Amino acid sequence: MTDQTPPVTGAKPLRADARRNRARLLEVAEEVFTERGTGASTEEIARHANVGIATVFRHFPTKEALLEAVLVRRLERLAEEGLRLAAEIGPTGALFAFFDLVVDQSPVKNAFAAALAGAGVDVRAATSEAGRAMGEVLTELLDGAQRAGVVRRDLEVPELTAILVGTCRMMEHLDGHPEAAKRARAVVRDGLKACP
Amino acid sequence: MTDQTPPVTGAKPLRADARRNRARLLEVAEEVFTERGTGASTEEIARHANVGIATVFRHFPTKEALLEAVLVRRLERLAEEGLRLAAEIGPTGALFAFFDLVVDQSPVKNAFAAALAGAGVDVRAATSEAGRAMGEVLTELLDGAQRAGVVRRDLEVPELTAILVGTCRMMEHLDGHPEAAKRARAVVRDGLKACP
Repeated sequence: MTDQTPPVTGAKPLRADARRNRARLLEVAEEVFTERGTGASTEEIARHANVGIATVFRHFPTKEALLEAVLVRRLERLAEEGLRLAAEIGPTGALFAFFDLVVDQSPVKNAFAAALAGAGVDVRAATSEAGRAMGEVLTELLDGAQRAGVVRRDLEVPELTAILVGTCRMMEHLDGHPEAAKRARAVVRDGLKACP
Repeated sequence: MTDQTPPVTGAKPLRADARRNRARLLEVAEEVFTERGTGASTEEIARHANVGIATVFRHFPTKEALLEAVLVRRLERLAEEGLRLAAEIGPTGALFAFFDLVVDQSPVKNAFAAALAGAGVDVRAATSEAGRAMGEVLTELLDGAQRAGVVRRDLEVPELTAILVGTCRMMEHLDGHPEAAKRARAVVRDGLKACP
């Protein structure tokens, strides 16, 4: 799916080699930003990717565009993971497995989102496409879990999304306190369940 | 309790009339910020309080200092409310009543906190005193609820605090969707309960 992803900026379709270069740059950028923080420079990324700075700028005219593309890619990959879980684990466990996956990945996602918001980017608008894909996956997982009777039946996707966002915020608040974080997560997970 | 609150800036104790002026200014400032948004100017607040701008600046040298004091006052009042609930409702219902109170007030609190963070203020540090008072109230409410058997026994104050913060984030995400917000809140509340 990554190969078919349209570029965030610019309307012209990319040729196959340009697409590959872009995908490789994104991969390196994600690694560098994750390891060194979102303060890492575009020059650093060019160096790690073994390309000139001009190549980076051809694909991503600003650092914000690059950060935005990395965030979108992460969200897309997360949505793909959700579909994979639904197929592999089945409806009884897939929603909770996905919940854990999203919550575990949240520190890095939050760092990207905060860096973008700090640069004045409207994160919600920038990720609306990836957000839609995420919404579809959540619909499928929630529907399966409710039919399997493992999640409360009154729950809908908007609040499930908000619950994920809020739980990520809890984890951020409890950064460095893994035992407390585990208990906070258990509270939300248990609340999602179809309690007698 | 408000009268005994030391000023946030300045070490000298205030005389009684200066304290009253300060308290009145804070009251007006809270009203104006809540009604017109945190973008309201110090001049507007002086006008509403019927004092000169110099009087405002004598108590609060910057708008950030004023916003900070309003946020601290809100948190202090919230902590006082918590103690009142414990005394009036008793341990079976007080924690959940307080939970609802905090969550209901969160949009305004978030607006203050966001305005402060936007102005470069370290909100956590600025509210550390009020945060301590809040922690004490939460300890009392949680302890009572656990002894009454209405809240899971493994829960501790750090994650309870994080759960409050995260639930406020959920409400922010669901702003304008009251039904979904109600269901999200029910998920967390049910998760807090001592489930069989």
